[in-house]
Amino acid sequence: MRETDVTVLGLGLMGQAIAGAFLKGGREVTVWNRTAAKADALVAQGAQRGETAAEAVGASGLVVVVLTDYTAVTGVLEPLADTLAGRTVVNLTSGTAAQAREFAEWAAKRDITYLDGAIMAIPQVVGTDDAFLLYGGAKEVYDAHEAVLRDLGASGTIHLGADHGLASLYDVALLGIMWGTLNSFLHGAALVGTAGVDAKGFSEFANKWIGAITGFVSAYAAQIDEGSYTALDASIDTHAATVDHLIEESEAAGVNAEVPKLVKSFTDRARAEGHGLDSYAAMITQFRRP
Amino acid sequence: MRETDVTVLGLGLMGQAIAGAFLKGGREVTVWNRTAAKADALVAQGAQRGETAAEAVGASGLVVVVLTDYTAVTGVLEPLADTLAGRTVVNLTSGTAAQAREFAEWAAKRDITYLDGAIMAIPQVVGTDDAFLLYGGAKEVYDAHEAVLRDLGASGTIHLGADHGLASLYDVALLGIMWGTLNSFLHGAALVGTAGVDAKGFSEFANKWIGAITGFVSAYAAQIDEGSYTALDASIDTHAATVDHLIEESEAAGVNAEVPKLVKSFTDRARAEGHGLDSYAAMITQFRRP
Repeated sequence: MRETDVTVLGLGLMGQAIAGAFLKGGREVTVWNRTAAKADALVAQGAQRGETAAEAVGASGLVVVVLTDYTAVTGVLEPLADTLAGRTVVNLTSGTAAQAREFAEWAAKRDITYLDGAIMAIPQVVGTDDAFLLYGGAKEVYDAHEAVLRDLGASGTIHLGADHGLASLYDVALLGIMWGTLNSFLHGAALVGTAGVDAKGFSEFANKWIGAITGFVSAYAAQIDEGSYTALDASIDTHAATVDHLIEESEAAGVNAEVPKLVKSFTDRARAEGHGLDSYAAMITQFRRP
Repeated sequence: MRETDVTVLGLGLMGQAIAGAFLKGGREVTVWNRTAAKADALVAQGAQRGETAAEAVGASGLVVVVLTDYTAVTGVLEPLADTLAGRTVVNLTSGTAAQAREFAEWAAKRDITYLDGAIMAIPQVVGTDDAFLLYGGAKEVYDAHEAVLRDLGASGTIHLGADHGLASLYDVALLGIMWGTLNSFLHGAALVGTAGVDAKGFSEFANKWIGAITGFVSAYAAQIDEGSYTALDASIDTHAATVDHLIEESEAAGVNAEVPKLVKSFTDRARAEGHGLDSYAAMITQFRRP
């Protein structure tokens, strides 16, 4: 085995995309996968094949792990603790913040340097400027490997902080915004669809409007951090009245109304607690508890 | 009463902003409000005061109405049907699609030309490029008055179609996207907040990510119109598994989990109907029925 810049363990679609992006970045890459054939295309592009995970890990100071889940991660890495000692593991496997923190503790006890990461991109987008990759762990570790990691997303590679759980937390929190936005878009598309409007036509307005929504997000974030919720635009009372319109229109049109009904339930609770005249930012009080 | 370009009935904060934007646009404006004093500032800026609604309506071929609700609209306009005949009413009062369509029928029977509109802007933004104003009604009526209406929002003034209910439908559907996005942002801010992340820091990632979400909206809109839901990125099965992570993280962190639980309920239903391998666009099937 020759010494290489980076080893990639796990060559599912995402692992292949990651190893491919490193090769494209001009790195010397070693790859390993339990089913060896998945490495063939990468080897044809110049990657070195590790016959075993131990051999692959031994080839690079930086080991990027992209396995199915944390059970697979511990199954592959725990037997290699001695080989991993003194090297850096960047774990891009999906999991929870608790799993990432627990694994970081395991690594620390074995002198393995550890970063946990999350990939906010589909495999096809990895390596492009549209990829969004988040990392949690010691800043100096991130700094030492940032140049290599930027092969996976030149402009979207971000260090969040020292807490190894941050990447997973941000990942699911940001995906939550995606589902929240998509579901309310789908609800809206179903509603205007009853008046013969096609989804494409509605999506153009929706996306223009979503641009305006980012302005509200910024303004409300500042209020949340200050803990002061002056209604500079509409109050929660005003929002609640308009949510009723959306519920009414949805029911009149015969489309699903569960999404606005949940919004209404939150605004009702905020109003019951005296936030009716506050800005929408005061709704944070409803989300901070179980 | 001298002949003017436009009459504004109703001078709440929004009506005042609208009349002010017309004045700024160089129009001759007549104004009326039940409480006459609300016209004073506009009169000082050059508007003509109508002592009665009838007098104000008689001064312009174009009458813009911004009252509290449709009860107020019919209360003020029905007694003036004879004066309104042959004129154009642009009704920017908030209401439902059904109210707009019903009022359009009333107007048509009395030879009153009618457009229904919705204002997606706070009063301070009316007249700027950030204002978003939507109109439903005959295209030729819109075209005849478009130049004047653009005083309220030069780049965001849009004719949606001939159906008078469209402006209200789009209005609430777009507001729904705002609540959906904001609530999932607040949920995410609460979640990452448990790891000591401030809302402002999270909002910067959120807004960058929301830019990516608009790409999904466009792609899924095209699939919805085609009625074919090939999973080019993640399947609904994959989304559902990740939603479980968000629920788990929320519960572990002690924050509210109702928003992702509703998402999960929708993905479960879509999977039960055989859409597990489809793209997220197939979720439209769940929103199209009560």
